[in-house]
Amino acid sequence: MRSVEETIIEQIRKAAEGVASSEVRLGIGDDTAVLRAPREGREILLTTDQVIENTHFVRHKHPARALGHKTLARGLSDVAAMGGEPLCFLLSLCLPEWARGSWLRQYIYGMFQVAKREKAPCAGGDIARGECFCAALTVVGTVARGKALRRDGARPGDLLFVSGRLGGSELGLSGLLSEASGRSAAVRRHLFPEPRLALGRLLSGLRASAAIDLSDGLSMDLARLARSSRVGAEIDAAAVPLFPGASLEQALHGGEEYELLFAVRPAARVPASAGGVRLSCIGRVRKELGVVLRTAHGVENLEPRGYQHFSGDRNGSRGE
Amino acid sequence: MRSVEETIIEQIRKAAEGVASSEVRLGIGDDTAVLRAPREGREILLTTDQVIENTHFVRHKHPARALGHKTLARGLSDVAAMGGEPLCFLLSLCLPEWARGSWLRQYIYGMFQVAKREKAPCAGGDIARGECFCAALTVVGTVARGKALRRDGARPGDLLFVSGRLGGSELGLSGLLSEASGRSAAVRRHLFPEPRLALGRLLSGLRASAAIDLSDGLSMDLARLARSSRVGAEIDAAAVPLFPGASLEQALHGGEEYELLFAVRPAARVPASAGGVRLSCIGRVRKELGVVLRTAHGVENLEPRGYQHFSGDRNGSRGE
Repeated sequence: MRSVEETIIEQIRKAAEGVASSEVRLGIGDDTAVLRAPREGREILLTTDQVIENTHFVRHKHPARALGHKTLARGLSDVAAMGGEPLCFLLSLCLPEWARGSWLRQYIYGMFQVAKREKAPCAGGDIARGECFCAALTVVGTVARGKALRRDGARPGDLLFVSGRLGGSELGLSGLLSEASGRSAAVRRHLFPEPRLALGRLLSGLRASAAIDLSDGLSMDLARLARSSRVGAEIDAAAVPLFPGASLEQALHGGEEYELLFAVRPAARVPASAGGVRLSCIGRVRKELGVVLRTAHGVENLEPRGYQHFSGDRNGSRGE
Repeated sequence: MRSVEETIIEQIRKAAEGVASSEVRLGIGDDTAVLRAPREGREILLTTDQVIENTHFVRHKHPARALGHKTLARGLSDVAAMGGEPLCFLLSLCLPEWARGSWLRQYIYGMFQVAKREKAPCAGGDIARGECFCAALTVVGTVARGKALRRDGARPGDLLFVSGRLGGSELGLSGLLSEASGRSAAVRRHLFPEPRLALGRLLSGLRASAAIDLSDGLSMDLARLARSSRVGAEIDAAAVPLFPGASLEQALHGGEEYELLFAVRPAARVPASAGGVRLSCIGRVRKELGVVLRTAHGVENLEPRGYQHFSGDRNGSRGE
């Protein structure tokens, strides 16, 4: 007789079969996975992220398939922000009673749809029961040696760009929490974010001076990039690309966009779009610390007001 | 003002400073960590394990420092079982209100004591709030190419060995749950398991045919090794090394020993001890499937009865 744990591992192993990789020499089922060393001239990227009930999602509102998608997409987005390529991932699941059976099948299905498309095989993980749902996903990637797009390389005079259009995820979340039914474009945007892997590789080729993915909101993630680089920034409100129906407020502070924010030297040739995703210049890096917003009424401080898990709500004001 | 999340990350970053590594080119604080590729001729090991409240520990019985120790030691034990060396680790924490302040400081202290001793730097992680405590720890290691000690290499005729003395962790857990105070040797054994990294490297040199770490109990982990290798095994009850005060039952089925079980060709020269830890021959691999126990009364089947998270109790009978 198989234990529940072994049945779930078997389920994941089957889903994982569709995403083979010659890099993974030994996958699910031993004490550790074994990976080939990356090919000559490449370094290893490592990132881990959690998806937790009532912190990152509400069980009765977020479909299991979307959560599986997002759990993996978030990790891949971090690899994209470094200009890298995914190699494989590890999945840890802490599962309460309710998150089994068909819910779990949908969750795994959503995750492996992304895994297949992005060619990211599952190399292992850990399954255990617990009192709340918590997924921790680790992505391993590679990047050309010395070419990782870090947060700390922005210099005064650099131009700041974002990919896509902002505010859609926040707008979609409001829609999801209030509506009884319906799947607007914004709700889909919130539920199924796309990691910008091709764009990340392009930026690595363009020698972008710094990059970060927008997970906690433009205002907060830009403040992080600026702080890491020991610089400030000025954003032009009119230049921030808005998702249809989203407000400037949602675009500036809404979380979970998973678009890339990056800085380039003024002479860099940034295309107008990459892989169908538009790239917009929204401002510039300056020497004076702090982030400011230029509007028709003048210049004001842009406080970091993105999502903070420990403040317990969105658009709180607990950032530095 | 710093957010709670940033304060905790700062706490971990400070603890991590004591464990530097030239392999980690970029550690805590960017979208991903960046590691140097392993040196020529080595492959990468990857493992992840969780420590969850009321599944792996009881808050009012298990000290925070011991849990920090065990969270990392479990991952390192998996690397030991493959014959590898740790390179770094990533820590994901899902933290309820109670697991902050001094509890968390003790937890981090316990973890980084192990990290320092085993030279395993922390390269990153993720901190978020949640309703139950759940830690997911990923360890990255390296091993000589093609030399990883897998579970599936045991062959009929091989001798089976275990390190250390068994049953102490189970005995210590009973003591911990029943006693109001007191720290017997068995309780210490349960709270502070030691990853057998030096032994793992020795076994890789000895070309052991298979190895596994004893996390869920000898009966269950031996059944896994035998199943992976498509062989059976016979254990000699009198040869199983008992922790002082532990019963044969506890030695056969008690979990969380983190000793290594390994198979070697009969001609292999296994020393009597390695780094102060005794190595005992406890049986042999046979062609007939299933695991049997030889006692003074004859031969009987040894059912896998170790710890199964989903059965909800120890020594349940949900193994295959």
